[in-house]
Amino acid sequence: MRNLTMMTDLYQLTMMYGYYKNNKINQTVVFDMFYRQSNLESSYAIAAGLEQIVEYIDNLHFDENDIEYLRGLNLFDEGFFDELRRLRFTGEMYAVPEGSVVFPTEPILRVKARLFEAQFIETAILNIVNHQTLIATKASRVVLAAQGDAVMEFGLRRAQGPDAGIYGARAAIIGGCASTSNVLTAQLFEAQCSGTHSHSWVMSFGSELEAFRAYAASFPNACLLLVDTYDTLKSGVPNAIKVFNELREKGYEPMGIRLDSGDLAYLSKEARKMLDNAGFPNVKIVASNDLDEDTIWDLKAQGAKIDTWGVGTSLITSRNCPALGGVYKLSAYEENGKLTPCLKVSENVNKMTDPGYKKLVRIYEKKTGKAIADLIMLDHEQIDTKKPLTIFHPVDTWKKTVITDYTIREMLEPVYINGEKKYTPRKVLDIREYARKELDTFWEEYKRIVRPNEYKVDLSQELYDLKHRLLHEYGKEN
Amino acid sequence: MRNLTMMTDLYQLTMMYGYYKNNKINQTVVFDMFYRQSNLESSYAIAAGLEQIVEYIDNLHFDENDIEYLRGLNLFDEGFFDELRRLRFTGEMYAVPEGSVVFPTEPILRVKARLFEAQFIETAILNIVNHQTLIATKASRVVLAAQGDAVMEFGLRRAQGPDAGIYGARAAIIGGCASTSNVLTAQLFEAQCSGTHSHSWVMSFGSELEAFRAYAASFPNACLLLVDTYDTLKSGVPNAIKVFNELREKGYEPMGIRLDSGDLAYLSKEARKMLDNAGFPNVKIVASNDLDEDTIWDLKAQGAKIDTWGVGTSLITSRNCPALGGVYKLSAYEENGKLTPCLKVSENVNKMTDPGYKKLVRIYEKKTGKAIADLIMLDHEQIDTKKPLTIFHPVDTWKKTVITDYTIREMLEPVYINGEKKYTPRKVLDIREYARKELDTFWEEYKRIVRPNEYKVDLSQELYDLKHRLLHEYGKEN
Repeated sequence: MRNLTMMTDLYQLTMMYGYYKNNKINQTVVFDMFYRQSNLESSYAIAAGLEQIVEYIDNLHFDENDIEYLRGLNLFDEGFFDELRRLRFTGEMYAVPEGSVVFPTEPILRVKARLFEAQFIETAILNIVNHQTLIATKASRVVLAAQGDAVMEFGLRRAQGPDAGIYGARAAIIGGCASTSNVLTAQLFEAQCSGTHSHSWVMSFGSELEAFRAYAASFPNACLLLVDTYDTLKSGVPNAIKVFNELREKGYEPMGIRLDSGDLAYLSKEARKMLDNAGFPNVKIVASNDLDEDTIWDLKAQGAKIDTWGVGTSLITSRNCPALGGVYKLSAYEENGKLTPCLKVSENVNKMTDPGYKKLVRIYEKKTGKAIADLIMLDHEQIDTKKPLTIFHPVDTWKKTVITDYTIREMLEPVYINGEKKYTPRKVLDIREYARKELDTFWEEYKRIVRPNEYKVDLSQELYDLKHRLLHEYGKEN
Repeated sequence: MRNLTMMTDLYQLTMMYGYYKNNKINQTVVFDMFYRQSNLESSYAIAAGLEQIVEYIDNLHFDENDIEYLRGLNLFDEGFFDELRRLRFTGEMYAVPEGSVVFPTEPILRVKARLFEAQFIETAILNIVNHQTLIATKASRVVLAAQGDAVMEFGLRRAQGPDAGIYGARAAIIGGCASTSNVLTAQLFEAQCSGTHSHSWVMSFGSELEAFRAYAASFPNACLLLVDTYDTLKSGVPNAIKVFNELREKGYEPMGIRLDSGDLAYLSKEARKMLDNAGFPNVKIVASNDLDEDTIWDLKAQGAKIDTWGVGTSLITSRNCPALGGVYKLSAYEENGKLTPCLKVSENVNKMTDPGYKKLVRIYEKKTGKAIADLIMLDHEQIDTKKPLTIFHPVDTWKKTVITDYTIREMLEPVYINGEKKYTPRKVLDIREYARKELDTFWEEYKRIVRPNEYKVDLSQELYDLKHRLLHEYGKEN
């Protein structure tokens, strides 16, 4: 396993040194990770990456080479290096399980630890969770657009480096993809891998027919042919049908064709007719070529005869929004032996943070089992589900809703307590199934591809009052 | 070193199996890597990633766990696994040196090898070179926009996973960034790392002034203060000046302030005045907050008083274009003992590939040393620089230029010959210097941030004739 301890922003180390010089390294602090608003046009996100955070934390240590390197920066003293040598995670971490549906402003990971540790792990947490949550969310939207058709992830060649390919494909599976082209991801995470051949296969033979015959001979049980190297309808599909007939004579049933260019709506309808007329109604049509959720949605609306969607660059890079923008913000610190809530002030009211040691509660309608709203509360608060619950919009507070006949669920689960691991690894395919079921608890309007409705994420009255008290105190001082 | 051998698209393995079953694995083939056109709005790209390709190739091998996994897919036979066990790169690879300025359609990496090997390495080559070339190019544009000011890369928390952060920062340095926040990248590649403190530092103290004093006490020689946690001009800058005066009384000169929100043009001008009036004309102003090349260009045009630019998400993800889209295409294959050129036909003339075993030549004007045009030629072709050279546009062939008094340079250099490594590793800072000098050989109009001019990339007459002969032959057959 790689040691990513040195994969940090230098300012984490300079701040840690400052805390060390100011005798603050053992002060208990609370940080929340959340995202404000993504440009994904999605109302929700699918949380992912926690397993890699746990691997990172478990492996956290500076070795002597690292210390030697840091010494060369001439910024730090030897006592600080002793602290770095001793650095392990001894605090508390709570997080939503991977595959959870989450929303803007909600704490999806919460750290309570000595300042020295809590500060240091920020960079890796944000790097890993921002990336995998982004791609899982993008994949979820692509899969929703495909309306039940299988989606294959195959963006490895355009991913932003090896990890973006490997863990991006992991996140894509969590988001609902049926398979990935990435053999390493499939091996590491027990996912399905898929793939057939490229244009270069066809070009490396004297003719398309010869290339198709050679492929069919190699994979008689899994013969899927790429039909657009020369001319899809004049050459590719007729040659494929010829080879499919030859296969059938030998007792095999062909699997499919793939379209990778041209007008996919038109070509798929024509190819479908040609295949049906030739006696191959069960041969699948796979489509690819710069697809994303919007194009798939549009092709479905046009009645394209496509059974399986291959999605590359747009998914693996989340092309329309290549960063989630999740942040990790201080919400409380120990002062005179007790936790003092704090917040980040900003001229933009949406950039204010929520103070205190908090939890996230999801409220479900009992009758339908559907999620109604999420509530960010202080950790000590309890909801009496026998009583009606009044929730209100965190900015437009006159927007109120009274909820009766509901159940609640606390979303944050323990990952570490006093440095001891409480996390149970789950298989990626189980996480995908969990995510699918979680999405089922949300009404369709939150999952629309275009202009989804905004899901309610409100503050408890006590948290709202705390936040506004702190804001007014701040206002008085300045 | 990680073994990335299994990081491949399954279709590379299915094709290799097909070639194996068809007795074609030892056929010699030629593949070119090039990019067609990026959406970066850049006329050029800065090639990067070759060192990681060499590491990948040197480490290329399937271990028994991998074979065991592949056996479980029930797609392949045991003879194929023996071929995989023996797989090493025994062929030839040429590439432009890292840091080279390259243009659309040009071969920047050329592989001539047995089909089995040349096919297999496609995925890793594209993944690594696409990523690093993209980020080096983006960084180059950001650095050009900063017009000589230092640019700090600090996007690690928003990068698409660890490698995107680590190798993205490497590429950013190659593209011209002065430093990175990523300590691991700085350690691995001997680059400068930089960073000071965040808002949470300020928030974790009772007041901003207290936080600044604590930071100054920890780093009296490198005191750079983030001044926008509460109110930049009313609180941050005055508090910073107070602490700078205290520092000076102790015999230290302060380093700078950082602005991370608000109107950077206005705030930097006001902060500059306040610092100057307080006797700190040498204190630098660092700015950050969702910067990219366009914003920097615009802030410079507005006369913003910013000395150093911190660039995060937009650079490390290449936000406006998160994938380069480089491809790896078959251009020739062995037939009856000799290389036969081939091309990919497409209805879109720009998607046609250039056939044959080719090289890339850059032509310089002798008088100025500036690059005039690039010429893609067949490898055996020679240019007699004593004679005038006529070049012509590869599509609009009536656009002709006659060049006299010029020098030429072959851009592709050997990386492997007969599997033997010919590559000499270079330090990243040397690559950055090489890239800077390379960019100097191009006229300004190709390096504009907005609507840069298109640089001439032409085909030799012989290559043009070959391409069109193949197209006509293809046309006759269909």
